Order: sequence, then C-alpha cells, then structure tokens
Amino acid sequence: MAVGPLSQDELDDIYAFAVDLGRKAGDLLMSRVEQRISGGEGNSQSFEEKDSSVDIVTQTDEDVEVFIRNALQAKYPSHRFLGEETYAKGQSRDYLIDEQPTWCIDPLDGTVNYTHLFPMFCISIGFIVQHRPVIGVIYAPFQDQLFSSCIGRGAWLNEKRQLPLIHKPSIPPMPANAPSGCVFSCEWGKDRRDIPDGNMSRKIESFMNMAAELGSRGGKGGMVHGMRSLGSATLDLAFTAMGSFDIWWEGGCWEWDVAAGIAILLEAGGLVTTANPPENPDSAPIPDVRLGSRLYLAIRPAGPSLTESGRESQERTVREVWRRVRHLEYNRPGA
Amino acid sequence: MAVGPLSQDELDDIYAFAVDLGRKAGDLLMSRVEQRISGGEGNSQSFEEKDSSVDIVTQTDEDVEVFIRNALQAKYPSHRFLGEETYAKGQSRDYLIDEQPTWCIDPLDGTVNYTHLFPMFCISIGFIVQHRPVIGVIYAPFQDQLFSSCIGRGAWLNEKRQLPLIHKPSIPPMPANAPSGCVFSCEWGKDRRDIPDGNMSRKIESFMNMAAELGSRGGKGGMVHGMRSLGSATLDLAFTAMGSFDIWWEGGCWEWDVAAGIAILLEAGGLVTTANPPENPDSAPIPDVRLGSRLYLAIRPAGPSLTESGRESQERTVREVWRRVRHLEYNRPGA
Repeated sequence: MAVGPLSQDELDDIYAFAVDLGRKAGDLLMSRVEQRISGGEGNSQSFEEKDSSVDIVTQTDEDVEVFIRNALQAKYPSHRFLGEETYAKGQSRDYLIDEQPTWCIDPLDGTVNYTHLFPMFCISIGFIVQHRPVIGVIYAPFQDQLFSSCIGRGAWLNEKRQLPLIHKPSIPPMPANAPSGCVFSCEWGKDRRDIPDGNMSRKIESFMNMAAELGSRGGKGGMVHGMRSLGSATLDLAFTAMGSFDIWWEGGCWEWDVAAGIAILLEAGGLVTTANPPENPDSAPIPDVRLGSRLYLAIRPAGPSLTESGRESQERTVREVWRRVRHLEYNRPGA
Repeated sequence: MAVGPLSQDELDDIYAFAVDLGRKAGDLLMSRVEQRISGGEGNSQSFEEKDSSVDIVTQTDEDVEVFIRNALQAKYPSHRFLGEETYAKGQSRDYLIDEQPTWCIDPLDGTVNYTHLFPMFCISIGFIVQHRPVIGVIYAPFQDQLFSSCIGRGAWLNEKRQLPLIHKPSIPPMPANAPSGCVFSCEWGKDRRDIPDGNMSRKIESFMNMAAELGSRGGKGGMVHGMRSLGSATLDLAFTAMGSFDIWWEGGCWEWDVAAGIAILLEAGGLVTTANPPENPDSAPIPDVRLGSRLYLAIRPAGPSLTESGRESQERTVREVWRRVRHLEYNRPGA
C-alpha cells in the first residue's frame, strides 16, 4: 500500500529501520536501569529526594530522545521530527504535525513506572504521513515486549505473534452486552485537583459507571469484567491492539504518547475515536481520532458475530462507553 | 534457618523443588495459551459466551492444580495441601491451615487477565510452616517472570536479580511524606454492588483519598505518585516485594492468592498487616498479617534514612494509609 509519496517498499524499509531503532533505544534504556540496580547513578536518593528522582528520569528521557533523533536524522534527513523532550522545551503548545512524513517519538513513556522500576515503561516511535500514523514501534525492554506495525503488513508482538493474539479462525466479536464482559483500561492521571467538576472527579464518576453492577447508577452501571491501570498510555494502546484490553478511554495524553499505539491498533483492526461523548451518543457520527486532540477512546479489534460485523460491534461499544463517561477538559491550540 | 521440624537444608531442597514445579506448571499454562492463540480450544467463543469463557478458565485452573498437587503429593506425601480449586469444591469456608507444613496453591491467579490474554496472570505456590509462609514461588509465564524466595535465602526475580531491585548500596527508605511519592496498587474487585456503604463504595472513597491532591478531602488527600490496578493480587504482592509498588491495599483475597506473595515480600524486607484501620491509627499496634484474614496492607522493603529505620518508615506509611482508607467487610469463620 502506497501512502502519499511513499511506496510500500519504502514503507517496508522505514519499518525495518524503526523496529531496529526501537530495540537499540530499549537497550540504552535498560543500560540505565542496570546502572540504577547495580548501585550506580543516584539510586538510593531516587525515592528520597524528589529532585533527584526527576533528574534521573529527565536525563534518561533526553539521552534516549537524542539517540533516536540522531539516528533518524542521519538516515532520513528529509523527514520531520517531533519528540516529547524537544517539544517540552519549546514555547508553543500548538499541534505541529502537518502533511509531511513525520516521526513522533516518546523516548520514555510511563515515567513514574520507570522511576519506581515497575516494568510497564517503554519507548514509542510513530511515523506519520498525511496525518495518518502508518508505522508504530513500542518496546518495553524490561519485559522484552516489542509491539510493531506497518500499514499493509499487520501488527505484531515480538515480530512473531500476530495481533490481536486471538485471530484464528476469526477475531472474537465484542461482547453482546458490552461494556459488560470487557476489560476497561483507564488511568487516574496527573490532574488530581479535588474540585467538584474537575477532570479527576469526572474521571472517577466515569470509572464508577463502568465498574458498577448492571442496572445501578441510573442505568449507567456497566459491570465491566475488569478495571486496569498500568500507568502508560502507550502500553494501554498496545494491549488494546493485542486484544487483552477491550476498551481504553483517556484524556490528557499528547501525540507522542499515542502515535505509535494508534498505528498498531488501527493495523490490528481496532477503532479509535474521541473520549468525549457527543450530545447524542446513540446517533452521532463516530469521528476518526484526531492525533492532537488529547482525547482518546480505543476499542480492540473485533470480528463478526452472527448478527453484526466487527465494526458494528465496535461502534456499539463506543456508544455504550459514551453513555457512561463524562466530558473531559483538555484543550490546545491548532489541533 | 530452621523452621519448626525443618532444617535449612530441607527447606533448600523444598525450595528448589517448588521453583522447578512453578516453571513446569507455567509451561502447562502456556501450552493452553498457545492452543487458544493457534485456534484450538473454543477461542472465538471465549469472549462471546460467558459459559464457554468460564469453562476455559475452570478447565485450565483444575488441570494445573491437579498437576501441582500430584507432583507435591508424590514428593512430599506427609505435607498438607490446600488449593483454590479443591477448596472451592468443598463446603467449608473455614480457614484450614494449621501448624503442619502445608502447601497453599493458586494454579491460576488473574483469571480475568487469563481469559482476555492480558499477560498479568500467574501460578502461585506457597509453603507454610507453623502459620508462617516460608517459601514462595510466583511465575507469570507469558512474560517469563519468576519471583521466588526461601526464608534465609533472599527473594529473587528469575533466580538472578535480588529483590527489591534497588538494594545497593542500600534499599531506599519510604518517602518522607508518604503516601505522596508512592505508587499505590489497588484492585476494584468483583463486589460491584452500588450500595451507599458497600465494599465498592468504601474502596472508591479510599482510592480517591489516596489519589487526591495534598490538603484536599479534609486533609486525607494523599497525592500518590501513581495508582495501579493489574487484576492479580498475587502479582501486586510480587511487584511490592520488587519495590515497584510502594503500597498494596486489598480486601477479599483468599490465602492461596497471597501465601507465596507474603513469603516473598517478607523475605525481601517488606511489611504486611491488616487492610482495616484500627480505631486509633496513630497509636494502635501494627499487627502481623493473618494469612486467612482476607484483609491485607503491604508495604515494600525499605532501608534507613538519616532519621528513621526502614521499619519505622514502613510503620509510618501504614498509619498514613490507615488514616485514609475505609474498613472493608470481608469475614470468614476460623481465621
């Protein structure tokens, strides 16, 4: 499949380079983990003094981003580059991605997990053409899990298991009474202001609706099969592409958190739209995700049942989620 | 270290057998995963029909338990055996473990994760002497993570990394303003009744207290660094022993969910007590955990700071958690 100026052959080459780069960046990240474990680089201070802990993360973040940026700029000097660290140092909070082939990178997603050495941290490398994430590489080096995809080539775990994991003889449909029966992935996030209608309050109300028994909460009780919070938006998306999570709902992420994950999820057959419910959740159109929107709702790949196509069951699930969640306030210019 | 009738040499032999058994049981579990991925055993039905999904889990649960029980009874015919499946089929809900050497087994912890093929499922093998879990083996085969310990021999990840992960030059103390700075591990659980003072409401109120910004919620806002829900009590404990999670708080688990994890956490230097706050959380004694209590609060291993011993910082953290959490209602006879 050609995308914009790029042929499938060119995309295949870029994909192979991105996978190799993800693994090498993961090795760099793990070398920092080994230093911390073996008693180097400020380890015992890492939990004691906040500043030192922040330094450990910032230095690693920056070093991994420079490593990835240098490799990409040497190999593909004409491609644009957007990295979390580079962006964070700039003044603008505009959405900067345009039609051009652009790399969108998070050198270290799940920074709290990395600080505490909980293995759910990863490198995220997305490649975007004409606003569409077409290649994604997510590598969680501590557990050696590499999720990857290239448009037209499928989505993969460690380059050998096709995603979603269960796809033969067919991908399971969404449950008939979703969100019941679903694993729901969500994060508490950094906005912890305890104000009556703030983002945290709205999130928790939404979580409670999804969790509570059927028929409760004025009909909003969704009785999901499980609630999961990993602390990494990138890995949430990867596990949704894998089929492990049925639904992921989030506000506040940036494009580098989700670019690779969206590429992988779409290639696996998932659906991504906006987190914020429209006025008429039962009938409103289901828009394609806007990468810079900071509001995301992802549904896992789904196959047909006797009565529905896979897409129909995903859209039904989107509407059932929209009925139960609150509008979140995350705005930005230019998205 | 001798424990009851068992010398350290005997414990070492039992430990080696348990580690090997955990790996073999994990291989059996993964063979079932491979069958589901490759299109065998009722895969596409697993999400469509609840009964079929339950069957997949129950059959695997039973087969793995039989495998483990047979191996243990052949090798150690004089030891007692308590397994989740065996227990669940009995009539009694009493706590059955006494002074005798007893194996306490969960053949598959994280059954919802297993159903959905989210990798956070595991085998849990605990060995208890005189009411004390002295050997623990937890194996998560999808990600090949084996947590293990034997009293007097340390706690380990994959038999090569000592737990907690950061222990040189010393184990980090608990944060000075814990629970702020801590990763808090908690689960929504199966009791989703939406009643004003039910377990779910009490849990969510407790979660909100731990998460909200400092100074909010009448001083209860704990501003933890992160909230994590994995869907496996056993792995929650394993990651607390690893130092990845600082605090784990839970009600409703059974002894097979936690026996191995408690052995590993204690050997790594952690503290385990009851989830339910006493009347005077600031001054009440901090009791040792009762294995059958179904109420658990675990604090990660902690080293000394300039002003406190590691134990003092753990106890301070227990009291800060008790100030913020509600009493949960999980009772049983004989515990």
